[in-house]
Amino acid sequence: MARSANYLALEEHFAKLADFHHIEDIMFWDEATMMPVGAGESRAAAISRLKAHIQRLSTDSQIEKWIEAIDQSEQASLDEWQRANLNIIKRIVQERKLLDEEFVAKRSKTASLCEQNWRRYRQENNWKAHRADLEALFALVEYEAKKRSDAFGLPPYEALVSHYEKGISITDLESVFGDLEKELPPLINQIIEKQSKSPPISLKGPFPEEQQRTLGLRFMKDLGFAFENGRLDTSTHPFCGGTKDDVRITTRYDEKDFTSAFMGILHETGHGKYEQNLPKQWRSQPVGHATGMALHESQSLFQEMQICRGRSFLEFAAPLIRESFGYNESLSLENLLKIYQKVEKSYIRVDADEATYPLHVMIRYKIERALFEGDISISDIPNTWDELMGKFLDLDTKGNFKDGCMQDVHWPAGIFGYFPHYTLGAVMAAQFYQQAKKEIPAMEEKISKGQFSDINNWQREKIHQFGSLKTAKEILHSATGQEISVPVFIEHIKTRYL
Amino acid sequence: MARSANYLALEEHFAKLADFHHIEDIMFWDEATMMPVGAGESRAAAISRLKAHIQRLSTDSQIEKWIEAIDQSEQASLDEWQRANLNIIKRIVQERKLLDEEFVAKRSKTASLCEQNWRRYRQENNWKAHRADLEALFALVEYEAKKRSDAFGLPPYEALVSHYEKGISITDLESVFGDLEKELPPLINQIIEKQSKSPPISLKGPFPEEQQRTLGLRFMKDLGFAFENGRLDTSTHPFCGGTKDDVRITTRYDEKDFTSAFMGILHETGHGKYEQNLPKQWRSQPVGHATGMALHESQSLFQEMQICRGRSFLEFAAPLIRESFGYNESLSLENLLKIYQKVEKSYIRVDADEATYPLHVMIRYKIERALFEGDISISDIPNTWDELMGKFLDLDTKGNFKDGCMQDVHWPAGIFGYFPHYTLGAVMAAQFYQQAKKEIPAMEEKISKGQFSDINNWQREKIHQFGSLKTAKEILHSATGQEISVPVFIEHIKTRYL
Repeated sequence: MARSANYLALEEHFAKLADFHHIEDIMFWDEATMMPVGAGESRAAAISRLKAHIQRLSTDSQIEKWIEAIDQSEQASLDEWQRANLNIIKRIVQERKLLDEEFVAKRSKTASLCEQNWRRYRQENNWKAHRADLEALFALVEYEAKKRSDAFGLPPYEALVSHYEKGISITDLESVFGDLEKELPPLINQIIEKQSKSPPISLKGPFPEEQQRTLGLRFMKDLGFAFENGRLDTSTHPFCGGTKDDVRITTRYDEKDFTSAFMGILHETGHGKYEQNLPKQWRSQPVGHATGMALHESQSLFQEMQICRGRSFLEFAAPLIRESFGYNESLSLENLLKIYQKVEKSYIRVDADEATYPLHVMIRYKIERALFEGDISISDIPNTWDELMGKFLDLDTKGNFKDGCMQDVHWPAGIFGYFPHYTLGAVMAAQFYQQAKKEIPAMEEKISKGQFSDINNWQREKIHQFGSLKTAKEILHSATGQEISVPVFIEHIKTRYL
Repeated sequence: MARSANYLALEEHFAKLADFHHIEDIMFWDEATMMPVGAGESRAAAISRLKAHIQRLSTDSQIEKWIEAIDQSEQASLDEWQRANLNIIKRIVQERKLLDEEFVAKRSKTASLCEQNWRRYRQENNWKAHRADLEALFALVEYEAKKRSDAFGLPPYEALVSHYEKGISITDLESVFGDLEKELPPLINQIIEKQSKSPPISLKGPFPEEQQRTLGLRFMKDLGFAFENGRLDTSTHPFCGGTKDDVRITTRYDEKDFTSAFMGILHETGHGKYEQNLPKQWRSQPVGHATGMALHESQSLFQEMQICRGRSFLEFAAPLIRESFGYNESLSLENLLKIYQKVEKSYIRVDADEATYPLHVMIRYKIERALFEGDISISDIPNTWDELMGKFLDLDTKGNFKDGCMQDVHWPAGIFGYFPHYTLGAVMAAQFYQQAKKEIPAMEEKISKGQFSDINNWQREKIHQFGSLKTAKEILHSATGQEISVPVFIEHIKTRYL
């Protein structure tokens, strides 16, 4: 028997699982982009069958037998990557075993129903009906959080937060959001005051979808997206999906305003490049995956916020944008800069600029913590929401549930503890960018010329190549020498906007 | 225990299998239409894992236990559809059990390799290299045929032929091809002579892809393709795939000549409508599937050859074609008719017209029979091919393997006994059409006005609704009172071309 026979059996089992996840990922993409409406029912049945198969494979009793059979000598024979992989596998098994099949099915069904109803209730601004669904779902989420809490010795909310990015603690969130809460609001007021003197002029379209797509593809290529391993398509809700060898990003087009699809494509390209650059030899194993959601978001925001909304990039892009759509003054560099750097206090998170976005996230973070710490219950959400929106963004959302606490899909889908990672990602993106700028000669000049290979190489070497060998915090530290901290992000905001 | 508990357990098991086949079908479509090249390797691994899972489910020892446990009382409690479903399930299990997993894997691998190499060897006109691959593959096909032969008490070739359409015998083929061999060659000479006096003028393009696609979609809709349950996309090799609730047809566009993509779309639409109209309540069970390949092809050829290449349809289509591409004399009704009804002796089956097509198939049928009956071996194929091409189509293929015996993907993919069904389908299509014309008042006039609902209803009622409850021969007989026979087809050829 080979020295690492048990470990290798685990690898083979997880390679099999990866194959079924590959299929699940492509089928999910197909459902969002290609599937005709009439196939919804039979597709749902097929996917639930696939998920059940994956659940069964993931909890196969053989897995624990292999793990237990790994003795000290076999453990010692493993290299660094194998050891990390084994640890992640142990964690996956531990997590899968916390919840039985019945609970998983019930949670999934309750969340599906809540999310489906929410689409209608949101349009109807019907908080009362949604509240009942959300209460039922939240009871299950709380149960799950409690299970994770017991298993990992963490407070329930922290157990959820760290599920999306290992090693992120409540202390990290308190530090980051504490600083942001102090620094951002006065800064935003200053910026808005400054920008009010010279607003952008309105875009003059139309901007035909096909030309928007062609332009998007061109920039994806320039930025280093590998089309032999990926695609760009259209879906109602943009996302980055598929597999590492077959990264599928999506956008949606508005023929009156190209700016949103264009920047959306660049954002998803950031996610996509991270996936494509993950270590090839670990494709089929858990250690080969992206480490977590905060680091993932840092890579999309590094692309979008740090690079593509900056002056250097727009110097490169503006002439090509005008080449696509024909020249008019709304497409001048200065006007595009004003559009892409406009800061305003608005209701909707997904449309928010990078200065106010952390405040949108903070409101959700505070509500989530209060829910899990028992300070408020689901029925209190609208009041707390309104109070916080008033405090941080001077907006009144009383009775406006649609554009208030019912705007996001996350809670109706049963996803709690995810929001903070958007802001951790934004903060880390600024830290990575500052470091890259120190290490890459004439980086801004290269960006303004459309030369991205040095930056891509830097990201690959410092971030992407590690997969899940290191945590996000470890990757940030090894790349920049820093912990996750707010000053660099605030500095970035000041430099760009004041 | 319910009276039909064992039967219902079988249904549930096959519903599970259907869900995994659903996934397999969509993944196959994705590979042909969407997948970027760099994903080939990881996709192949994922699909082989899925296939192995399906094979395991299909040979689950529990299936036979349920079948054996069905006693007379349970049998008596089943309705007509359930009884048919049970019989098909028994047949599937019997077939799956004939070959062990090792053989299935070897056959699949050998065929993949042979097909991949063939793509290169064909371009190189390299029969010698291909021959070695084909010999290795044919040995496995022969083994499989022998196994089926023993199990079903049929000659080996008949065992393969009837695998693709139950109930088709060598006697059927002898009768059909015997008549065609007698009737067609002189008829073709007459037609070619007649057409030589007034050839079509060349198409004047270009025909932009997007306009071809829009035109195709419009005709699919007119012909009754349900877009809430299907799509049209692009692939190198056109096909009709997906699932019954999600029928995905494909085509390929040539901007210099729209006629091939246009007619190809209409052909696949015929396949697609059959799939969409299969009985809804039997979606998840074997009895709900199309009965076989001959009947399937009869539905695409009913659409393409009987309806869409006819004068009535082109009267309807020609103005819309000109509306799409702008008027020029190459797009006149008379010229389009000449193009779509041109008969010629050519090398390539897939480009052949409906008069010469059966001769192309006959050559393959004769070679396949001779191979399985031991009259020739693989190395004799080129000579036999050349001899038969000379005899039936006056063409010399000596040394021209590329456009001769190496032109089709079927043999390199290990598919023997399939070709005859193309011609059975063509013959049945003519028989169905003749009958529909008798039963539907003013049918040709309706076609010329683009009114297809009476024909669609007729097909649904007489053919599509039966799924696999009846064999192709039974469906033909109940719809037309006839056996599969050539005279109606010959009559159709004479009427259209002389």
